Amino acid sequence: MATILTLAGDGIGPEIMTQAIDVLQAVNKKFTLNLTFESGLIGGTAIDATGEPLPEETLSRARAADAVLLGAVGGPKWDTIERSKRPERGLLKIRSELGLFANLRVAKLYPQLANASSIKAEIISGLDLLIVRELTGGIYFGEPRGIRTLDNGEQQGYNTMVYKTSEIERIGKVAFDLAQVRAKASGKPAKICSVDKANVLEVTELWKQTMTKMQESQYSDVALSHMYADNACMQLIRDPKQFDVMVTGNMFGDILSDEAAMLTGSIGMLPSASLDEEGKGMYEPCHGSAPDIAGQDKANPLATILSVAMMLRYTFKQEQAAQAIEQAVSDVLDDGLRTVDILDSSEADLRQVGCQEMGQAVLAKL
Amino acid sequence: MATILTLAGDGIGPEIMTQAIDVLQAVNKKFTLNLTFESGLIGGTAIDATGEPLPEETLSRARAADAVLLGAVGGPKWDTIERSKRPERGLLKIRSELGLFANLRVAKLYPQLANASSIKAEIISGLDLLIVRELTGGIYFGEPRGIRTLDNGEQQGYNTMVYKTSEIERIGKVAFDLAQVRAKASGKPAKICSVDKANVLEVTELWKQTMTKMQESQYSDVALSHMYADNACMQLIRDPKQFDVMVTGNMFGDILSDEAAMLTGSIGMLPSASLDEEGKGMYEPCHGSAPDIAGQDKANPLATILSVAMMLRYTFKQEQAAQAIEQAVSDVLDDGLRTVDILDSSEADLRQVGCQEMGQAVLAKL
Ligand SMILES: CC(C)[C@H](C(=O)O)[C@@H](O)C(=O)O
Ligand SMILES: CC(C)[C@H](C(=O)O)[C@@H](O)C(=O)O
Repeated sequence: MATILTLAGDGIGPEIMTQAIDVLQAVNKKFTLNLTFESGLIGGTAIDATGEPLPEETLSRARAADAVLLGAVGGPKWDTIERSKRPERGLLKIRSELGLFANLRVAKLYPQLANASSIKAEIISGLDLLIVRELTGGIYFGEPRGIRTLDNGEQQGYNTMVYKTSEIERIGKVAFDLAQVRAKASGKPAKICSVDKANVLEVTELWKQTMTKMQESQYSDVALSHMYADNACMQLIRDPKQFDVMVTGNMFGDILSDEAAMLTGSIGMLPSASLDEEGKGMYEPCHGSAPDIAGQDKANPLATILSVAMMLRYTFKQEQAAQAIEQAVSDVLDDGLRTVDILDSSEADLRQVGCQEMGQAVLAKL
Repeated sequence: MATILTLAGDGIGPEIMTQAIDVLQAVNKKFTLNLTFESGLIGGTAIDATGEPLPEETLSRARAADAVLLGAVGGPKWDTIERSKRPERGLLKIRSELGLFANLRVAKLYPQLANASSIKAEIISGLDLLIVRELTGGIYFGEPRGIRTLDNGEQQGYNTMVYKTSEIERIGKVAFDLAQVRAKASGKPAKICSVDKANVLEVTELWKQTMTKMQESQYSDVALSHMYADNACMQLIRDPKQFDVMVTGNMFGDILSDEAAMLTGSIGMLPSASLDEEGKGMYEPCHGSAPDIAGQDKANPLATILSVAMMLRYTFKQEQAAQAIEQAVSDVLDDGLRTVDILDSSEADLRQVGCQEMGQAVLAKL
C-alpha cells in the first residue's frame, strides 16, 4: 500500500486536481494499485489558512507520502506580502526539503496539436525532448543572498550561483541514465547536451568539466555535447529536433524548459517530475496557476493528468497504468476535444470543452 | 574630425570587416563626415601576436577613439588556454574598461526574409523589437567568483549576481528614453517590459522595484510591465509583437537577445551597439566568429554593415548617412541577393552570393 499526497494549491489548481484525482482513482481500481490518498495545503491557500506557504503539517505529510501530486501555486493576491511568506517560497521549500534535485520536463509535440504552435510544423513535428533540470541548487538556493544598503546610501541586491562536483555528478547521472533508457526505447544512439555559460561563469565551467569527466569515465556509449545557454536558446527555435536529452542547472533549466514547452504550442499539455535520490517524487504540470481563468472551468487538466502518468511510471514503476493514461489522453484529442488553450479555431471538426468535461472524457476512455 | 578604431578579430571577423570598412569609407566621402580610421588587435589574433586577448595598445587606442567597430572574437584554437587569457575575456574587458553599460540589440524582421524563420510568418511579420541589455554588471562581473576546493576535497564553483540601484537606474534611463524616441517615431504609445526573476532572486527584486520607481517618478508617459525571464522566453515565441522595448540584466539579456534574433531567422542581419554614458560606443554584429566558415567567403557582412549604420546614428548623430546604409541593404535584398545563411532555396528568383559580392553590392547602391 502506498500513499499519495495531493496539494491542489492556488488558481486553477483545485479544478485540475479534481480531474487528475478522478483519473488516478480509476487506474488505482483498474490496475489494483492499492494507492491511498491524502490532501494538504500549499501556496496562497496555505498562507490564508495558516500564515505559511508550506505549513509544517504539509511538509511532514509530504515526507511520509510515497509521492506528491501538485496543482499550481501563486497569484496576485499574495504578490505583495513579505518575500519569505510568498506562495513560491512554499514551492521552493518543498523541493529543497524533500531533496527533489532532479526535475524532468518533457517537451513533446502531440501530432493532433501541431497547428497550435507558433513554430512551423516541419521544425517541430515529432519533437520529443527531455530537459533534465537541477532543482535544489544553483542560484535559486545559493548563499549569501539579499538586498543591503551600501555606505553611500544606495541599495545593492546580490545572489550567489554555486554548484559543487557532487551536485553536478548527481544530476549528470540522472541525465546520462535517462539518455540510455531513451536510446534503448527509440533504437537511436544515446546523446545528451549539457548547457552552460562556461565562457563567462566559473561555476558552469566546473559543470562542463564534470560532465565531460563523467562521460569519459562512465558513459562512453552516450554522446555528450556542450552548448552555451544563449546559443541553446537560439538552437531550440532553429532546430529543436537536434536535441534528445538536455541537462542544465536550476536557472538555465527554468528558462529553457519553458521555452521548449512553448515550442510545442501546448504548455497546458506538459507534465513534470521532480525526483529525489530514491526515485520518490513530486509531480506537477509545467504551467502555472493562471489566476485569470481560475474557477471558470476553462483550464486544461491534461498536464496534471499526464503528471499522474509520470508518477505511475517513475515512482511506482507501473508502466502499463502510465501508458493507459497517456493513451486515453491521446484518444480524447483524436476525438477532437480541446480546451480553449489548445483550440485551433481554423479547424472545423474540433469541439471546445471545459476543464471538467475534458477530465471526464479521459476517465471514460480508461 | 573623429577617429574610428576597427577591430576585426577572429574567424569571419576580417572578411566582414573589410566589407564594412568599404561601406564606411563610401559614406564618409558622400556625407563629408571627416572620419579617420585606425585598426587594432583583439581576441585570438591578439593572443597569437601579443599573448593578451586585449593588448594595452588596443585598449588605449579604443579609449582615444570616438567609436569602435568590432568584428567577432573566439574560436576552437583558443578554447583550451587558461581562462583569463581567452578571446572572450578581451571582449568582456573592453566592454568593462570603456564603460559600455548599455547594449542595444534590435530584432527586426526584414520582409524580404520572412520565410527564413522557423516561426510562422503571421507571428513575426513586422517585428521590430529593441532589447536593452545591461552590459558591464550583473553576474558577468560580480565578485567573488571562481572554483575552490572544499574541505572534503571536492570542488565548488561560484559566481555572484549583483546590481546596485545606480546601475539599474542608469540602464533604465536608456531604455525609458529609447521607448519615448521609438514611440515618437511610430506614433504608438511608449511601452517597456522589464525582465527579472524577482520571485526567486533578490537582486532582480531590486531591479524590479527600481524600474517601478523610475516609471512613477519620471516616466509616467511610458507604460511599464514586468515579466519573469522564463515567461519572457516563452512569450517571445508565442507573440513577440507584444513587446516594443525590453530591458534586462546582463545574463538574461544575453539569452533573450539571442532568442529574439533567432526569431527573425536572420541573425546574420542583426547589428548591436554598446554605449557609455556619453553615447560613445562600440558597434558589432550580434552573431559570433563562425570559425567553421572563416576564410571561405561565405559570411554575411550585413550585420556588420548595419552596425556601421547604428554607429552613425548613435555616436555621430548622422541620421541621414545611417538611413542611406539601411536603404542600400534593403535594396540589395530586394534585388534577390542572399548569402547562404539567409537563402531560402524554395524561392526561385534569389541569387546566392559570397561575403565580398554582398558587401560590394551594398557599396554600389550608395
Ligand atoms: C514559480 C517559480 C519559483 C518556479 C521556478 O522558477 O522554479 C517556476 O517558474 C518553475 O519553473 O517551476
Ligand atoms: C562571447 C560572450 C562572452 C558574449 C556574452 O555572453 O556577452 C556573447 O554571447 C554576446 O552576447 O555578446
